[in-house]
Amino acid sequence: MLRTKTCGELSLKNIGESVTLCGWIQRMRDMGGMTFLDLRDRYGITQIVFNMETNAALCGQVRGYGRECVIGVSGTVAERSNKNLKIATGEIEILAEKVHLYNRSKTPPFTIETDTDGGDELRMKYRYLDLRRPNVRANLELRHRLGMLIRNYMSGAGFLEIETPFLIKSTPEGARDFVVPSRMNMGEFYALPQSPQTFKQLLMVSGYDKYFQIVRCFRDEDLRADRQPEFTQLDCEMSFVEQDDVLATFEGLVQHLFMAEKGIDIGSLPHITYREAMDKYGSDKPDIRFGMEFVHIKKGLAADASENILPSGKFTVFDNAEWVGGFVARGCAEYTRKQIDELTDFVKRPQIGASGLVWVRRANDGSIKSSIDKFYTPEELKLLADKADMQNGDIMLIMAGIGEKTREQLGTLRLHVADLLGLRSANEYKPLWVVDFPLLEWNDEDKRFYAKHHPFTSPKPEHIPLLDTDPASVNANAYDLVINGVEIGGGSIRIHDRALQKKMFSILGFTDGEAQKQFGFLMDAFEYGAPPHGGIAFGFDRLSSLFGGAESIRDFIAFPKNNSGRDVMIDSPSTISEDQLKELCLTVRN
Amino acid sequence: MLRTKTCGELSLKNIGESVTLCGWIQRMRDMGGMTFLDLRDRYGITQIVFNMETNAALCGQVRGYGRECVIGVSGTVAERSNKNLKIATGEIEILAEKVHLYNRSKTPPFTIETDTDGGDELRMKYRYLDLRRPNVRANLELRHRLGMLIRNYMSGAGFLEIETPFLIKSTPEGARDFVVPSRMNMGEFYALPQSPQTFKQLLMVSGYDKYFQIVRCFRDEDLRADRQPEFTQLDCEMSFVEQDDVLATFEGLVQHLFMAEKGIDIGSLPHITYREAMDKYGSDKPDIRFGMEFVHIKKGLAADASENILPSGKFTVFDNAEWVGGFVARGCAEYTRKQIDELTDFVKRPQIGASGLVWVRRANDGSIKSSIDKFYTPEELKLLADKADMQNGDIMLIMAGIGEKTREQLGTLRLHVADLLGLRSANEYKPLWVVDFPLLEWNDEDKRFYAKHHPFTSPKPEHIPLLDTDPASVNANAYDLVINGVEIGGGSIRIHDRALQKKMFSILGFTDGEAQKQFGFLMDAFEYGAPPHGGIAFGFDRLSSLFGGAESIRDFIAFPKNNSGRDVMIDSPSTISEDQLKELCLTVRN
Repeated sequence: MLRTKTCGELSLKNIGESVTLCGWIQRMRDMGGMTFLDLRDRYGITQIVFNMETNAALCGQVRGYGRECVIGVSGTVAERSNKNLKIATGEIEILAEKVHLYNRSKTPPFTIETDTDGGDELRMKYRYLDLRRPNVRANLELRHRLGMLIRNYMSGAGFLEIETPFLIKSTPEGARDFVVPSRMNMGEFYALPQSPQTFKQLLMVSGYDKYFQIVRCFRDEDLRADRQPEFTQLDCEMSFVEQDDVLATFEGLVQHLFMAEKGIDIGSLPHITYREAMDKYGSDKPDIRFGMEFVHIKKGLAADASENILPSGKFTVFDNAEWVGGFVARGCAEYTRKQIDELTDFVKRPQIGASGLVWVRRANDGSIKSSIDKFYTPEELKLLADKADMQNGDIMLIMAGIGEKTREQLGTLRLHVADLLGLRSANEYKPLWVVDFPLLEWNDEDKRFYAKHHPFTSPKPEHIPLLDTDPASVNANAYDLVINGVEIGGGSIRIHDRALQKKMFSILGFTDGEAQKQFGFLMDAFEYGAPPHGGIAFGFDRLSSLFGGAESIRDFIAFPKNNSGRDVMIDSPSTISEDQLKELCLTVRN
Repeated sequence: MLRTKTCGELSLKNIGESVTLCGWIQRMRDMGGMTFLDLRDRYGITQIVFNMETNAALCGQVRGYGRECVIGVSGTVAERSNKNLKIATGEIEILAEKVHLYNRSKTPPFTIETDTDGGDELRMKYRYLDLRRPNVRANLELRHRLGMLIRNYMSGAGFLEIETPFLIKSTPEGARDFVVPSRMNMGEFYALPQSPQTFKQLLMVSGYDKYFQIVRCFRDEDLRADRQPEFTQLDCEMSFVEQDDVLATFEGLVQHLFMAEKGIDIGSLPHITYREAMDKYGSDKPDIRFGMEFVHIKKGLAADASENILPSGKFTVFDNAEWVGGFVARGCAEYTRKQIDELTDFVKRPQIGASGLVWVRRANDGSIKSSIDKFYTPEELKLLADKADMQNGDIMLIMAGIGEKTREQLGTLRLHVADLLGLRSANEYKPLWVVDFPLLEWNDEDKRFYAKHHPFTSPKPEHIPLLDTDPASVNANAYDLVINGVEIGGGSIRIHDRALQKKMFSILGFTDGEAQKQFGFLMDAFEYGAPPHGGIAFGFDRLSSLFGGAESIRDFIAFPKNNSGRDVMIDSPSTISEDQLKELCLTVRN
């Protein structure tokens, strides 16, 4: 090795030792008689001292080097007079005796520090420099640790990591596939997997009853912020299980990760149905770090009017609304007109698309005011405030409209207000299971059902008859792991019966021929002894960013792509040669 | 869980317990009053007993099920009267009380046993059934264990597993890339990585001084037997190292794997130079489980004639040959004419292409006979036999021709004879390092140099001046790990200097523009403080098959492709829709 020690390991107990360190020059301070150099590697920073009096030549040599040059330094470990107790090596320094320059560096285009002056595009173009920043390094180290923790936990629980192929077959259901032209099979294409779904199910048919894999997946989607065309998944499947077995197994994994990485005992995870999540929080991935559960003021057009909290015939907006509901923001009665206006603007943004916001406040003196004062009597509003358990000083924010849509809008407002109130701490974790998802989702544009999870998800056995009469009401043994309002994982019990799978494809609009062409291998496999099975997949990039306390996944991926799917560092995608196209029998259309 | 125990865990200490097992029917024997059923899962086989007298209905029910049906059985563990000590569960059986049929099975197209009657194509088409065979399962379990051992060893040694991108940039140097058309960037393509080479080097520039990854790689090559278009690599890189540091690190890994998986202490690995390997064994991946090193009878046209063992001017074939050499096969003096003819035919096959074979035998009585008796005196042949250390009963097989080519041919014969003699035991492991590979390889067809390893390999520093005068003679700090005649891994110390990398590209025939377009990001990175670094990559499929004692990698891959790059199970590659082509702006040429 060109070094005997790293820049992160020397301390007072090494005083007097001769050592050689290698690393990058973080900074240099020329103090006239002395030059101090901070040498950085993956493990830390060590101060190197050059003395003009004792070794002027060496001192002069080093003063010629700039930031980010790579050097090796030999010298003796000495105690620092001016200790820096903020860093592990802050009590010692190296009295330099010899320096070897391994490589020079041009001046980096941004500062290599946690707080950098580099903008996004610049940092991505020079990602190899961005990756030197200690916070980005910490992210990748965290990701490595999580990967090791997961693999050892899964392996210890009897799961086998089995690699599935990347060059598979295009199945246009779901998101768009990336395809790969085959040179040896002219005019034919492979596809890159959106997930190993069918392969892991085949492994269950093969009897590998506990499978996992940390695996790259690919989706050619129009990229929204923080979506990557390639992403990593922890993919799992088990045989001879029911929903609760899967949940218990992966609850164990989640508990283990929080304990091992953060020392947090998150306890057992609450289960909440999809219906309950939508009704209470207006979201199928509710953030339950804080309350602010919905108060249902009007439950529905068809609901018994006596269940409504406010009388009808008074306020046409509420009368016409299918659903009216709100939540209470504690201690916010003092919100100014401006603050209320901002919240109203927030819900009116096109991304949310609500028409307005109603408020009711209970002031600190107990008096009740509301934006709908003129429509309801004080008694009616007091009843509302009481039913909503409003305390003095609270405000209730209310929205009205089409049921599910309005609940989702109110759910978004709930998160926004919680953000404003600082109720969403990055250091608090409240995982939960959302269960009993609907099997299907009606798409009004295409006038057809889509699978809510995917076409392999099994309806709840007791709902199977409803497939023929009322498919929209069929629930699935499908579940999501949600942490702090983010969907971290999702899975289901699968269909393992050929006839039911065929029926499912037919409900999704496949002809028998299409179903057989695309998924025949799986349905055929079901005829040779397929066990009951189910599984789950977790977004590993997202899990890493959650553990890292960050919102974006990008800095937990070593070499991410930008929102146009480009890697600006290597400049990819790019054109390929006419020879390559010819070999692949392809022409690019203009 | 639908089961309380697996089919591999019950023993005498469970007698009397009520259990539920799930699995596949391996076989059923109807003995009139009793029916015996072997139930199989991933963990083993357990015998289930149905008694016609005590439960005729249940017995009748089960008799209707066939091989590979999936059932759950509840019953009581009992001691077997007729014990089978060959299997772990052979001392007990389950007295069945209840059976649940989870799924039926059609009759499988081949027997689900280690020795199967299924041919290759059939097994691949029904790979999900093939994977049920215990030997294939053992292979995938071994692969899982090796993956865990490697990851824990590497992580324990301070290496970080960092994922690199799959959608990268096409760089036509080396093998052919698989490309991926980009929909969002019309007319442009990603490429799938042939290895993460440039990314791991960038990680070194970023200061992640110990990197590893178990990662899929892709090569669009015309497939020879036992090559896969996608394969898995253990990819590693280190900074601030010299060749010996890399070798020592991975020698540790190899020792650890053999000890942990096989309980074998393989000791320290010999180092042998490329030159020595070619001269002694005619191969850069020598099998050193046995001797049979080459005897150099004539060292070269230019060599000092006094070094030749046989005098010149006697046998024109040897006189005209650049090199003459042989090896001694111990105890084979009794080879018949037919056996010799078969060996001659072997070397004359087009794959080897030699023109003939000369032999010299020293019979058990010490007398010497040879196919070139008439050209040399008995004294001359005796001298040859003595110099070759031939004992009574040995034969020497000799070939003559162009130096390196003839040595390679003789090397192939050496392996063949060792196979015939049973000297290549699957249970003996002799790993070694082959070092000091040439940097470049001249291609007579293209009239240009190719990189022997890859364009990023550094010449030995002391050879750098030769790049201008005699590139063919430049050696590299490049090394291969060879086990039992198979190249398991290879790597090198890399170039970390922009000017040298540029020169290397120029020697390889790149214009400056091409080099900058394809690898500019790497050369640019070298200007921002690139440390000295080097690494290695291991073929993980190959490593698994080596540990599994098998020749083919295919049964160590869950879902392999055939020699045309097809997955015959899912029928991929396949055509894609005109809509998909249109979105990608592509036309398939006819």
